[in-house]
Amino acid sequence: MAVTPLRRDEKPVPGSGLSARMAVRGGAHHGPTAGLAPGYVQGNLAILPKALAADFLQFCRLNPKPCPLIGTSAPGDPRVPELGKDLDIRTDLPRYRVWKHGELVDEPDDICKFWRDDLVSFVIGCSFSFEEALTAEGIELRHIARGCNVPMYRTSIATQKAGPFHGPMVVSMRPLTPRDAIRAVQITTRFPSVHGAPVHIGKPEMIGIKDIGKPDYGDVVEVRNDELPVFWACGVTPQSVIATVRPDFCITHYPGSMLVTDRKNTEFAVL
Amino acid sequence: MAVTPLRRDEKPVPGSGLSARMAVRGGAHHGPTAGLAPGYVQGNLAILPKALAADFLQFCRLNPKPCPLIGTSAPGDPRVPELGKDLDIRTDLPRYRVWKHGELVDEPDDICKFWRDDLVSFVIGCSFSFEEALTAEGIELRHIARGCNVPMYRTSIATQKAGPFHGPMVVSMRPLTPRDAIRAVQITTRFPSVHGAPVHIGKPEMIGIKDIGKPDYGDVVEVRNDELPVFWACGVTPQSVIATVRPDFCITHYPGSMLVTDRKNTEFAVL
Repeated sequence: MAVTPLRRDEKPVPGSGLSARMAVRGGAHHGPTAGLAPGYVQGNLAILPKALAADFLQFCRLNPKPCPLIGTSAPGDPRVPELGKDLDIRTDLPRYRVWKHGELVDEPDDICKFWRDDLVSFVIGCSFSFEEALTAEGIELRHIARGCNVPMYRTSIATQKAGPFHGPMVVSMRPLTPRDAIRAVQITTRFPSVHGAPVHIGKPEMIGIKDIGKPDYGDVVEVRNDELPVFWACGVTPQSVIATVRPDFCITHYPGSMLVTDRKNTEFAVL
Repeated sequence: MAVTPLRRDEKPVPGSGLSARMAVRGGAHHGPTAGLAPGYVQGNLAILPKALAADFLQFCRLNPKPCPLIGTSAPGDPRVPELGKDLDIRTDLPRYRVWKHGELVDEPDDICKFWRDDLVSFVIGCSFSFEEALTAEGIELRHIARGCNVPMYRTSIATQKAGPFHGPMVVSMRPLTPRDAIRAVQITTRFPSVHGAPVHIGKPEMIGIKDIGKPDYGDVVEVRNDELPVFWACGVTPQSVIATVRPDFCITHYPGSMLVTDRKNTEFAVL
């Protein structure tokens, strides 16, 4: 199946998800997708052989907070029509990671040469969506203010097992004043399909985090005396779980290089 | 204006708010109203002379979290039609407190002999409504389990001034696990007219509470190591504020002896 270029008479709207994907596909955009196409949903990507797809689907269904599925493909089909017009999963992310038996073997700009007829794509919601909603309500997020990655931690919270897939939930942490923490619960509750409400607040030790100053992924972010650490289920969970299964072959997005979709963040608000 | 007895052919539905008020009015029920007419809204009562009514109304409007007005009367009219059929504010609460110049002068079972043509009634939502919703969702509230009063604290959070009315917000505290605290934010957000979402969570010192073990009103309740203290704006605030104004005359409910209305708690849920 070849990549379908846009017809000449179809110009993507500037600032749209489609426009961002065209820029990525055409080589005009490299690097992280944060800030690209504001208002449009971005997603984590996991591509697995069909033989593992049913189990992984079940894993996502059983663990909707860390693994909110927002799009899937038919086996061998690089399109994900529910997420975007003319979307080609092989070319539309800035960078990928290719894994064989759990080992990282390549970090290419497109995965055309790795494509197989048995591959199934899973697109999983990401925190960019609810962070946009928090920021729009005037809540400052420190990792964004600092221009660094959100700190993430492996927890003692177990996911629900499905076939070979199991492992601890990974959470992201944002320090907030108590007042903002309460508002953040309210705001993110509106977005159940992009991680939704926090899974924990305060007291990191209760979810197996021994040292808040040592995240397992991302960067350290200060928690001030007048703040509570607020924890959300994180889309790194499925990647962490896939890594433990060491499938013979799989592809994920490169950290920060997400799939930009045609869906609006506001579409994912339940209220 | 005389108390209107029910007509013989109108029998109140057992367990209803009307039935509870008839039991109170007829002398069949004395004491606290907690647990009476489950599902029906109960309210705090403040009765003030007309000369202060406009300022107090404004105070409630400016401070909707501690002072959510659910019903008001016309001057001199003992009825509050929006809250109940055949409701007579002079007889339908089990016990009252009568104040002159800020001094408690009586705690009568009815206030017929104190009634004046210039009195205005204000009925303010109470935490019983959201506590019912929390309990229905399986969240155990310790003060209920212990059979004691909820602990309440004067805070450093100022209310918005209106005329002579001003003073600190009073909050009630319920210890909850982080998981239940998050759910409690979600559940109580649905009830903005009965105090709504918490105003604070964790870190009592940030709102001027020096010792969580020494509430200003109510009883001490333990906060365990795996719990956060969660604070809601409290309907004791208006009484505390009225006390500082020391009006020449006012009447309030006796603590725990609330007005039972014909409105259902579920009517007050915004979702």
